[in-house]
Amino acid sequence: MNNFVYHNPTELIFGKGQLSLLQEKAKQLGSTVLIVYGGGSIKRSGLYDKTVSLLQDAGCRVLELPGVEPNPRLSTVKKGIEICRQEGVDWILAVGGGSVIDAAKAVAVGVPYEGDVWDFYSRVAQPQAALPLGTVLTLAATGSEMNRGSVVTNWETQEKHGGTTTFPTFSILDPENTFTVPRDQTIYGISDIMSHVFEQYFSHTPEIPLQTRFAESILKTVIENAERVLENPEDYDARANILYCGTMALNGTLPVGVETDWATHSIEHAVSAIYDIPHGGGLAIIFPNWMRYVYRENVARFTRFAVEVWNVDPTGKSDEEVALEGIAAVEAFFARIGAPTRLADYQIGDDKLQVMAEKATPFGPIGSFKKLTSEDVAEILRMSL
Amino acid sequence: MNNFVYHNPTELIFGKGQLSLLQEKAKQLGSTVLIVYGGGSIKRSGLYDKTVSLLQDAGCRVLELPGVEPNPRLSTVKKGIEICRQEGVDWILAVGGGSVIDAAKAVAVGVPYEGDVWDFYSRVAQPQAALPLGTVLTLAATGSEMNRGSVVTNWETQEKHGGTTTFPTFSILDPENTFTVPRDQTIYGISDIMSHVFEQYFSHTPEIPLQTRFAESILKTVIENAERVLENPEDYDARANILYCGTMALNGTLPVGVETDWATHSIEHAVSAIYDIPHGGGLAIIFPNWMRYVYRENVARFTRFAVEVWNVDPTGKSDEEVALEGIAAVEAFFARIGAPTRLADYQIGDDKLQVMAEKATPFGPIGSFKKLTSEDVAEILRMSL
Repeated sequence: MNNFVYHNPTELIFGKGQLSLLQEKAKQLGSTVLIVYGGGSIKRSGLYDKTVSLLQDAGCRVLELPGVEPNPRLSTVKKGIEICRQEGVDWILAVGGGSVIDAAKAVAVGVPYEGDVWDFYSRVAQPQAALPLGTVLTLAATGSEMNRGSVVTNWETQEKHGGTTTFPTFSILDPENTFTVPRDQTIYGISDIMSHVFEQYFSHTPEIPLQTRFAESILKTVIENAERVLENPEDYDARANILYCGTMALNGTLPVGVETDWATHSIEHAVSAIYDIPHGGGLAIIFPNWMRYVYRENVARFTRFAVEVWNVDPTGKSDEEVALEGIAAVEAFFARIGAPTRLADYQIGDDKLQVMAEKATPFGPIGSFKKLTSEDVAEILRMSL
Repeated sequence: MNNFVYHNPTELIFGKGQLSLLQEKAKQLGSTVLIVYGGGSIKRSGLYDKTVSLLQDAGCRVLELPGVEPNPRLSTVKKGIEICRQEGVDWILAVGGGSVIDAAKAVAVGVPYEGDVWDFYSRVAQPQAALPLGTVLTLAATGSEMNRGSVVTNWETQEKHGGTTTFPTFSILDPENTFTVPRDQTIYGISDIMSHVFEQYFSHTPEIPLQTRFAESILKTVIENAERVLENPEDYDARANILYCGTMALNGTLPVGVETDWATHSIEHAVSAIYDIPHGGGLAIIFPNWMRYVYRENVARFTRFAVEVWNVDPTGKSDEEVALEGIAAVEAFFARIGAPTRLADYQIGDDKLQVMAEKATPFGPIGSFKKLTSEDVAEILRMSL
């Protein structure tokens, strides 16, 4: 186990009807609030009306930043920063999924910063201050509700980067708010959650037994609940289990003392920066191919993965066979739940492989399980066609 | 899964040499610090000198509350409160194990409170403020380094109660600081950690798959590292794994959305309030007997426990047989690592069973897996003789 520092101050408020706790929070955080949200789904579901009512009943003046995109754009973030500065906003409430929360985080750290908020994404600067931020999560996926990561796309430069921003002060997770998530978004969310675990599981760090088992626990729980939510989108318990897994997959618990990878996320960001495909869809396609490309770096890790997570029976098989059977199980699972499995599913051909590979490695080789150059990335993308 | 709120603001600083981060913390928290510690072990190990030097180099005036007892006493806590008030102490640093940290927490919440600090333990009041508290942990056991629980004994009334106090601001966990923990304390620590998991694992709450797997993960990791640390007390990785398990076992991760039990802890507190036996020793004795007394309430939970944690082969056995085999495995494990298994090991006979049973149930029946009256408790103690 490596040395680590873990500190996660977000208050996680989980369960049916927990939105009502919003009023207490509003009274603590101030009377002018900016609600950040995406398309119209929270209006259709009634969550928008409920949230605004609660805030107004708590005496808040409610301002709005609607229209956050699925891959949130820098231009939208800048609009939010302007509103906060002009209107003296005290705190921000993100109501939505990971994109909405990521945009709200960017606004929160952008407001007190004199420079360009993109500095936090191009890694020129680190945020020193932030407006308080609450979230009402509507989608199990990115884990953004309980970490300080944020991914924003700069369309002027066609770059999609992750930055270290600010932890939400609180996040309200009511599984019922995920009942209306469409089937494809549910699938992408599942793929995203599992991918977060993969990035932190495939590691060469020795002596990380608890971290390893926690990661396997999340994967097994997602796997056994995935088909339940797809069959019955209003299965409260299945939605709750997946929602909680999504948070635990990326709230800093898994990577403590572990060298993590994150190459596949960089590759996917490069793909979706150019083709604007859903992040979870891109990950489902790329991850099994990344696994096939790198598993020889640590076959034992992949055989353990196959046996523990996918119940592969190792009897009479070589380690390599077991490892490959595990990887095949990942791909089969994604196919079974209806995730895309090839770049061709998004009409992506081989014409921009090299461009994407370069974009995925702007600061040199990526990943740690196997360091990947742009040539390696191009090969993984070719395997994913 | 039940509704829950999870919020744990403690910063966990883990690994070799991390004590050096103390100076930065001292600069943030103030120039007058009270060090709380127990017997002479931190002086013998050199940790005391290192800590005081670091604090003095950071410009701190260092005051002391030495001599905290293994079951920390209210009278000691009150001494600490007096020092803080007289000397204008800015923050407290506990250097030691759970007892030291628990005493330091009591001091931290006692200082700004006008009433008697025992109010927080007799549940007459809840703390509204606290001095900042850091910890340097020297023993893997209670989890006190990352929660706001504290157990204090009032010898005037022969009561040992847990109170809700304050989270440490930071906790420094260097596995090397646990190298010198004596064999018996190491064993009690292991028993304590496992018992914390048991209290949160045996539950009737449906649909808690991730919480269940996390609990099993901790148990399996403790089991596979226990004999390693006993064979080689300076095995860094084994010490690190157990140390991290101890924190995760009681930092609020396991009980989210789960109805937990805690009856066995109440029973043990009643025993050690009268006989002053080591908490971990008492738990190792009582827990298998609690299990035998209650398992019929939910045989399925106990069969799962047997199979997942203790690798009991269920082939051809009834659920009840599997469950009982799992319980026998717990007892055999405690015996194997050298923990006590009968109250007789501490020369405790049957003369005060009823007194202890009454003391364990001062507010009525205890526990949730099976509600235990004082008669039930007396029976469990009789089984433990």
